This record gives sequence, C-alpha cells and structure tokens, in this order.
Amino acid sequence: MFAVTILGNNSALPAYDRHPTAQIVTLNDQVLLIDCGEGTQMQLSRYKVKRGKLNHIFISHLHGDHYFGLIGLVTSMGLLGREQPLHLYAPPGLDEIIQLQLKVAATSLPFELVYHALTKEELILDGPKFSVECFSTKHRIPCWGFIVREKKLPRKVDKDKAIEFMIPASFYNSLKEGTDYITKDGTVILNDQVTIPNSAPKSYAFCADTIYDERIAAIAKDVTLLYHEATYLKDLEERAAARFHSTTIQAAMIAKKANANQLLLGHFSSKYEFLDDYLTEATAVFPNTQLAIEGVTFLVKR
Amino acid sequence: MFAVTILGNNSALPAYDRHPTAQIVTLNDQVLLIDCGEGTQMQLSRYKVKRGKLNHIFISHLHGDHYFGLIGLVTSMGLLGREQPLHLYAPPGLDEIIQLQLKVAATSLPFELVYHALTKEELILDGPKFSVECFSTKHRIPCWGFIVREKKLPRKVDKDKAIEFMIPASFYNSLKEGTDYITKDGTVILNDQVTIPNSAPKSYAFCADTIYDERIAAIAKDVTLLYHEATYLKDLEERAAARFHSTTIQAAMIAKKANANQLLLGHFSSKYEFLDDYLTEATAVFPNTQLAIEGVTFLVKR
Repeated sequence: MFAVTILGNNSALPAYDRHPTAQIVTLNDQVLLIDCGEGTQMQLSRYKVKRGKLNHIFISHLHGDHYFGLIGLVTSMGLLGREQPLHLYAPPGLDEIIQLQLKVAATSLPFELVYHALTKEELILDGPKFSVECFSTKHRIPCWGFIVREKKLPRKVDKDKAIEFMIPASFYNSLKEGTDYITKDGTVILNDQVTIPNSAPKSYAFCADTIYDERIAAIAKDVTLLYHEATYLKDLEERAAARFHSTTIQAAMIAKKANANQLLLGHFSSKYEFLDDYLTEATAVFPNTQLAIEGVTFLVKR
Repeated sequence: MFAVTILGNNSALPAYDRHPTAQIVTLNDQVLLIDCGEGTQMQLSRYKVKRGKLNHIFISHLHGDHYFGLIGLVTSMGLLGREQPLHLYAPPGLDEIIQLQLKVAATSLPFELVYHALTKEELILDGPKFSVECFSTKHRIPCWGFIVREKKLPRKVDKDKAIEFMIPASFYNSLKEGTDYITKDGTVILNDQVTIPNSAPKSYAFCADTIYDERIAAIAKDVTLLYHEATYLKDLEERAAARFHSTTIQAAMIAKKANANQLLLGHFSSKYEFLDDYLTEATAVFPNTQLAIEGVTFLVKR
C-alpha cells in the first residue's frame, strides 16, 4: 500500500469548508505527514488516521497555511502520552517558534522532537523500505518539495520452479535478493530461472508552493504521482507569477514534462467555490489528472 | 443586544467535533473575541460572525487550546485587507511568538496590532457603552478572567409627560442624563416626573481556566451571566484540583455564591462524549445553568 490522503487542499484563506495544506502519505505500516495547516489534528481524527504510526512530519515552508496546525498536533500528542521520538523536517526557524510556545505554556513534551533543518537538496530520510529527498522550489520564502520513493522491491520466488530445481526454502531470501543458486554438484541455477521481477518502485513528488519552474519536471522525472499546486485557473497566470504560485495549465505542463503517471492538483484559491474548471483546464494538457479532494485517498500506482 | 456565542467548548484535546475555547461577545454593534483556540477562524466562518466588527481580542492564558488559532485569524485578517487597528489583550509572551511567526513568513500585517499585556487586575477597556476588566484566576500558569459590563443606560423620556410639561425636544438628551428641567418662570420639573429608569446594566464574567476559588464569586458578584469552566464531573474533584481545573459542582457553587443570574458551563474534558451529566450535576446546585454548546448564542439577560 502506497497512498496519499488529502487532509487540506486550500490556499492561505480557509474557505468553503476547505482546509489549508496537509497530506498523509501511507507506505505499508508507516504514516508520513506533509505540511500541517491549521486544523490538521481535527482532520486526522475526522479521517481516522492512526497517529501512533506517524513518526515523520515534513513542513515545506513557513507560511502559516502550511504549519499553523503543527504546534497543536505536537502538544496533543504529548497530552496523549506519546513516548516515541517524532522527526520534524522543516526550514530553520520553526524550532524556535515551537520552543517558545512550549516555554510560555510551562510545558515539556514527554517525547523527543528531533528537528531536521532543511538547508540543501539531499536525501533526508533513508528507511529500509523507502526514502525521502527534499528539493527547493521557487516561492516567496525558502520552500521545499519532497519526493518519497519506494526502495527497489525484492524479486518474487517462482515456487514451482524453485521446487523443480530442488532449491531449499532456506535459500529463498537470497533468491529474492537476486543471488544465483549453486547445487552440491556445482551446477549454477541462474536467479532469473527461478524468480520473477517485482513491480518497479513507485514514487510520490510533493512539489509544495512554487512558481512555474521546469526544473521541477527534471527533478521529478518519471515520478508515479506528482502533486503540484494550482492556486489559480489559467486566466490568472500573471497573478500566479506575481505571487510565486502556479496555474492549472502550468501544473499540467510540469506533469507532462516530468512524464509523471498521474497528476494531483491542490492549493486551490479561496476565490473559487467550485473546482470543476481546475479539472477541465488541466486535463486538456495532462489527461490523467485528479483534484486533491479532502478525505480522498489516492493510490500511488501505474 | 448583549450576547455570548460559543465557538469552542472543549478542553485541551479536540474531541467529538468539539473545538478548543473561543467565545464571541456581541454588544450592539461591537464584537469581542475571548480566547482563540485552533480552528477559531473556521468557526467564525461557520457561524457567520462578522470579522469587520471585531476589534478586541482577549486571551486568558498561554495554554495552546486558548490561543493556537490566533495567528491564523490575525494573518487571515491581513490577507483580507483589514486596515483598522486590532487590540489584543493577553499575557506577556504572546507578542514575541506572533512577531516571530510573522518574521519567518516575511510578512507584515497591513493593520496595527495593538498589544495590551495583562499584568494586574484592572480596567482594560473603557468604551462609551461597555467596559472590560480583567482578574487573575488560579491556574498552572498566569491566567486571566474577564468581566464585560454594560455602562449605565440613559433614562427613558416619558414623551407624553414631557409634552404635558412643555419641555422642548432639544432638552430630551439632558433628561436622559437625569437633569431636572427649569421652566422660564423658574419652576423645577423634577427629572423623575418625566423619565423612567432604563433596565439595569448587565454583565458577563468569563472565568477562564481555574481551580475552585471562592474569590471569583466575590469578583463576579451579582453578574448577569457567569461562564465557569467545568472540565470534570463531580467524581473527579481530586483530578480537577491536581490540574488546576474545576468540576460541575464547583462551578455551580461559584455561580450560587456570586448570586449570578445564569451559569454557562464549558471547557469539557475529552473524556466525556456525552454532556448530559454536566447539566444534571450542576443544576442540582444552581438551577439556571446552561451548557456552552458550540454555535449557540446565549443572551445576557435577567
């Protein structure tokens, strides 16, 4: 299971019951949170996301609609008795705000909050089954996108073939890793005679807030699911540029240039009550587009 | 019109779709906000409160469930182009947090945020039609309650009587102030011959978070509507005391000792999904009790 659940999809001003940016990325038993606008802790409850599995939070930038919900979530985790460390990946500055807010409340968290300051494009999390790297986007203040990549999946053992070649089950894990099997009499059973490749690793690129920037297409090349902001419809291209945001068409062009499998649009301006035009405009350029509707889970799949 | 609208009624952990503390006090054309837990700006939209009339915000203390929504509300007011000054009455420390949050966002507000630090019990707002005073409560960190009082209302002119005594209409405003009228021949028409008293000024006491403290009953003596926290039901009196909170019975006892006209209970613990027992327990001590249900407006009346 590799999926993205939308908790908030609106730009700065909450409107029409749409919340500021927050997304859950689920990878098997791991839960990652990307951005944490005001009300995220309520949205987590609303959509029944398990907080106990949430150990990594990524904040793209320090505009309030991307982090004002963080302190509430973190202190609530404390009240609920969390003990395991929580890793926070965010631009420099947020740690000082959090510490100040804890200080005035005379509160200390019952768990370790591990702060990872985002300062350059790099691999920021390297787990056994997935990795996360950050990349900078062009916005009014320092801003970071994130790419979550599955690790290469082990090959699958073709059991009928393995039995036919009399390979002991104790060697199956080595087979999954791609190792050839050598029989007692020295015969080499080539790995691809008894295994089949697993599906190629999938990936999710969260492109944060950004002006139209073709560099993102290169960074997110061949990504499975690309989330790109589309604050405005295409007729407001100038306003988008002036505010370091993007339009529907621009988001779709990035997805096309990146050769993404699917595009997810979000960060909708509170100018728009209805979102139909977003889909109409974007699909004209990149057909496999979806709107990041709150509460909906999008599978990262080909 | 003098009324209190509940935007949030829960204690620290949001639960069962109940939000952290926030209340709107409406006095004719003025709107005051007391406390501003996370999500308050969404609750203002939900209950259609006019932000343009909101010029004074009061924060009781710096536990997050009483102020985490403030920065979102304030920056949204900026995005919406607010120009008139906004007065903020809060314990020292909140100004530094707000300034830091504006700094990391490279944002400046398009209006003046006037910070009034609460440091002693005093009159903090003295308007033409109402006043607000603050008083300290006993909580884990410095905490302030607020009493909003209508000013003494002008007397009403009995027009039939005024015409009978041939008092010119130009003198009516003086009559409302209680002045006697002297005719050209020197006859004194006593004010109470031609006016009737208006209703007595009403008042609202918001008693913040507090341990059981009879001093509050003296401070809020004869208040019209008393809001008192009741985090716990009566069986958890020890836990309430340990955490500097109150129970249903204690809140009702304060209302009784204060000779309040009506009691409003709030700050419900997330332990309790249903609130019926709060009302049952409190009304046994103080019959005229209401629960601070979100979205409900309570008239301050006798």
